Amino acid sequence: MKASRFFISTLKEAPADAEVASHRLMMRAGMIKKLGTGIYTYMPMGLRVIRKVEAIVREEMNRAGAVELTMPVVQPAELWEESGRFQGYGPELLRIKDRHERSFVVQPTSEEVVTDIARQEIRSYKQLPRNLYQIQTKFRDERRPRFGLMRGREFIMKDAYSFDRDLESAKASYKIMADAYRRIFDRFGLRYRAVAADSGAIGGDVSQEFQVIAATGEDAIVYCPESDYAANMEKAEALAPAGARPVPTQALAKTPTPGKATCEEVAELLGVPLSTTVKSLVLATDKLGADGQVESSQVWLLLVRGDHDMNEIKVSKVPGLDQGFRFATNAEIDEHFGCQPGYLGPLGLKRPVKLVADREVAVMADWITGANEIDFHMTGVNWGRDLPEPELVADLRNVVAGDLSPDGKGVLAIERGIEIGHVFVLGTKYSKPMNATFLDEAGKPQFLEMGCYGIGITRLPAAAIEQNNDERGIIWPDAIAPFTVVLCPIGMDRSADVREAAEALHGELLAAGVDVLLDDRGERPGAMFADWELIGVPHRVVISDRGIKEGQLEYQHRRDTAATKVPVAEVAAFIKGKLAA
Amino acid sequence: MKASRFFISTLKEAPADAEVASHRLMMRAGMIKKLGTGIYTYMPMGLRVIRKVEAIVREEMNRAGAVELTMPVVQPAELWEESGRFQGYGPELLRIKDRHERSFVVQPTSEEVVTDIARQEIRSYKQLPRNLYQIQTKFRDERRPRFGLMRGREFIMKDAYSFDRDLESAKASYKIMADAYRRIFDRFGLRYRAVAADSGAIGGDVSQEFQVIAATGEDAIVYCPESDYAANMEKAEALAPAGARPVPTQALAKTPTPGKATCEEVAELLGVPLSTTVKSLVLATDKLGADGQVESSQVWLLLVRGDHDMNEIKVSKVPGLDQGFRFATNAEIDEHFGCQPGYLGPLGLKRPVKLVADREVAVMADWITGANEIDFHMTGVNWGRDLPEPELVADLRNVVAGDLSPDGKGVLAIERGIEIGHVFVLGTKYSKPMNATFLDEAGKPQFLEMGCYGIGITRLPAAAIEQNNDERGIIWPDAIAPFTVVLCPIGMDRSADVREAAEALHGELLAAGVDVLLDDRGERPGAMFADWELIGVPHRVVISDRGIKEGQLEYQHRRDTAATKVPVAEVAAFIKGKLAA
Repeated sequence: MKASRFFISTLKEAPADAEVASHRLMMRAGMIKKLGTGIYTYMPMGLRVIRKVEAIVREEMNRAGAVELTMPVVQPAELWEESGRFQGYGPELLRIKDRHERSFVVQPTSEEVVTDIARQEIRSYKQLPRNLYQIQTKFRDERRPRFGLMRGREFIMKDAYSFDRDLESAKASYKIMADAYRRIFDRFGLRYRAVAADSGAIGGDVSQEFQVIAATGEDAIVYCPESDYAANMEKAEALAPAGARPVPTQALAKTPTPGKATCEEVAELLGVPLSTTVKSLVLATDKLGADGQVESSQVWLLLVRGDHDMNEIKVSKVPGLDQGFRFATNAEIDEHFGCQPGYLGPLGLKRPVKLVADREVAVMADWITGANEIDFHMTGVNWGRDLPEPELVADLRNVVAGDLSPDGKGVLAIERGIEIGHVFVLGTKYSKPMNATFLDEAGKPQFLEMGCYGIGITRLPAAAIEQNNDERGIIWPDAIAPFTVVLCPIGMDRSADVREAAEALHGELLAAGVDVLLDDRGERPGAMFADWELIGVPHRVVISDRGIKEGQLEYQHRRDTAATKVPVAEVAAFIKGKLAA
Repeated sequence: MKASRFFISTLKEAPADAEVASHRLMMRAGMIKKLGTGIYTYMPMGLRVIRKVEAIVREEMNRAGAVELTMPVVQPAELWEESGRFQGYGPELLRIKDRHERSFVVQPTSEEVVTDIARQEIRSYKQLPRNLYQIQTKFRDERRPRFGLMRGREFIMKDAYSFDRDLESAKASYKIMADAYRRIFDRFGLRYRAVAADSGAIGGDVSQEFQVIAATGEDAIVYCPESDYAANMEKAEALAPAGARPVPTQALAKTPTPGKATCEEVAELLGVPLSTTVKSLVLATDKLGADGQVESSQVWLLLVRGDHDMNEIKVSKVPGLDQGFRFATNAEIDEHFGCQPGYLGPLGLKRPVKLVADREVAVMADWITGANEIDFHMTGVNWGRDLPEPELVADLRNVVAGDLSPDGKGVLAIERGIEIGHVFVLGTKYSKPMNATFLDEAGKPQFLEMGCYGIGITRLPAAAIEQNNDERGIIWPDAIAPFTVVLCPIGMDRSADVREAAEALHGELLAAGVDVLLDDRGERPGAMFADWELIGVPHRVVISDRGIKEGQLEYQHRRDTAATKVPVAEVAAFIKGKLAA
């Protein structure tokens, strides 16, 4: 490719609303252009990257036995009503009415359509397993689109869906996909982690996120440097601390804490570590009668250490809370605690509540909690002595760095990641409401067991940039660079030698299948180099009159601090060696 | 590819709503699946065809210097308001409101977005010419979607847009595209015609449609078998007939034609050819005052031979009608003709009208027209004698087979076609309202001269099938077949010889870059052959125990009536020879 036949458009300044490096650099490098909030044109330079991402994903999906199809962008609402998502999806689902006032959605994913296909096409267990995928435009009307392609509204996703005869087979299909994802992300040349994620009602180890490591990532990734344990924050288990509960050393006391309604304020006032405080969360569950009306309600008190964060996914798995819960009303809190939030605690209740202690709280001694009286806290609180041992102890909190690793092989560390893939066993979540069945060996209809597998095709370039950039611009991994090699001739319009050498090398590399661009725009060297450093082409060769006289061209990798002189006749072989490495 | 790893799903019966061969056969061959009216999933077998179409289009577009980008499917309404199309497009434009009640459209084409990009990116004449294209999902909310992919609502289109400094350069860009289109359609292996189309306000020879010839086509194509003249019906010029007007032989007479309000009825009643009758069309034009109100109106009478059809595009180019016209009201007709439609004519008017005679009518003698009196026609009408020679003579009608060719090289023929491509010089239709300018050599802003170039990517397979099918199914041209070659082993599960020969040939052809499928499903021969004849793979090799014993495999092209025996060792070379041919 020659630059004069391509579309290159770089900017000195990024737009003011570009907050993260990938957004700034993709705008400056002319890879994307904003059309509306969260809606971007993929400009020629950016589209080349996206096409390379697509090609690698497609190749590995095919290798893993998945078969490509393309489902419509605009989908009839009827199917979404069958699955319950037309109502359930919320305002992120873009809804449309056609000229006949029929309802449609712009697909955010395609579970409904693929399940509809499966229930028509798959009749017998003999046709299973099956895996169908597409690489197609999606739309989610995000509340807060931002960061360019990182959290856009319109985006391209690879979404695959597996169909199996039973859960065991579904897990095998899941494993094939998880393995394919590792091959895909290895080929991208990115540092990533596959982290365990919550798998909802299915349970077990059947949901993983693929996270590109980057300080700017929106997600916290928990991992153990001494083992291969890795999970996302929702999923990472907080073990009970090692060792027994310390012996009480303090007497129970009601301590004035006027105007100090948070654990932080109380710890500061009393001059104690925040980790000696315990915070209270009051929830409620309702029992419904046959008529769907609330028959009775139960109030719950959850206790977590003052310096820990409650984990909503974990709370939703506590026996008794796993069928749904809500925050308690002010009236309920008043009725049970005789006090309002800020000074709540488990002592001196007006009416009994169901108490759940976090594993950490259950082994604390001499702790501090609200006194159920405005402007007072209890200090020196101890289980067994001041209140009964907790009946229910559960993991209720987010892990923190330094927690024991759940696999017992060291302590946890936390880093930031960008989710670019997700593999998930869905079970019968869609096949049941949509009645997608097959006949088993006995001729009996069974629901299809499904899995779904996504890769954010247009998010991936952004994640790659967050991980690979410097003050001059992007540094692409070879596999997904818009061009692998750029040839920068100096004074091509003045020197026949330079022009001939550049054209010859261009032709030689093209013939060898190298994705090379010859910059024949006639820019001055400074501007030309700045452009390619911004755009982030990994391999650069400078062709100059002086170099040709010396019989040498200058090679420089985007990460190198200096150029390497390479004899003219050896440059093509040298480059091929670099690319094979 | 092996069939066991692919998704094959054929049907014995087509759905009842499939009216044309391509729709029926694509459904039966499992290439598409209906999701809603005019909305289809491209199933794996169909997607392979579409991808091949895309690849050929992409290669030739790139070769022609166009650069690919991808514009959003969901586009903000603001841009469409700038161009005037948000109001002007009509109900085919799918309109959406997002969660913030902002208006969007699902793109039917992308002139607005690409013009917006151009006005930001193109600053100087030095950046011109430019051609940007995309291959992307489009949506048109057709009033009557039908014929499967032929007239769907969601479809894939390649749309390219050129930008030039002046009309001359725009015409050069147009020619480059028209040439690229010929290469593309040649590669598809289809019989097609590039036909001149109407180019609206631009004028000149700057609009062509590419039509795949098929008896089921929706469009009439006019061509001259003795020359390369070809045009669509809207554009094809009807010349004045050769020779002078015949001498009058009949006297003018008022003839009773009770209840006969059409030319057909009158000709039948009087026992004369329909070609001796003349029909009247009454139009009106309005002159507006400074306040936008109608100041005065002019009534027009257009005359066309009874057996000819009025051509609205041609009417809209008649001087005086070219700024817009409407049908005359009943009141206007009554005021000028003293009669209502069915018996109107140019004789005995109550008030003068502006008369336009079709070229053919202008040289008629002894013709028949309405008497401006219910139940009466005038016969033996002659120009100059019974009414003044027509002041305005114009081409007002569709050509018919046998008309003189406009290039003077013979007579015209008419066949049916399916429009699969269109190249068009747009001029400043979008750049003016959207203020897309560049600076010329003098530093003066000038409007960009644009062209647009479409190919219906998903319509093309349907058109190919309309042209290439028989009672057994589809017959794909090699270039866009879902698979080029299918290997049909008989008894692969029973015979190790068959299995080994099939696997070896499969491997050998794959290594040679042939797109080959090995049918390892274990179907019985009859069902297997029927499937592949339905799906339309052009080249088939049957591998049987008997053949192997004889040292021969059976090759058959989808169009062949019998198989050719080829020595086992020569089959791969034989196939490669067939594909190179």
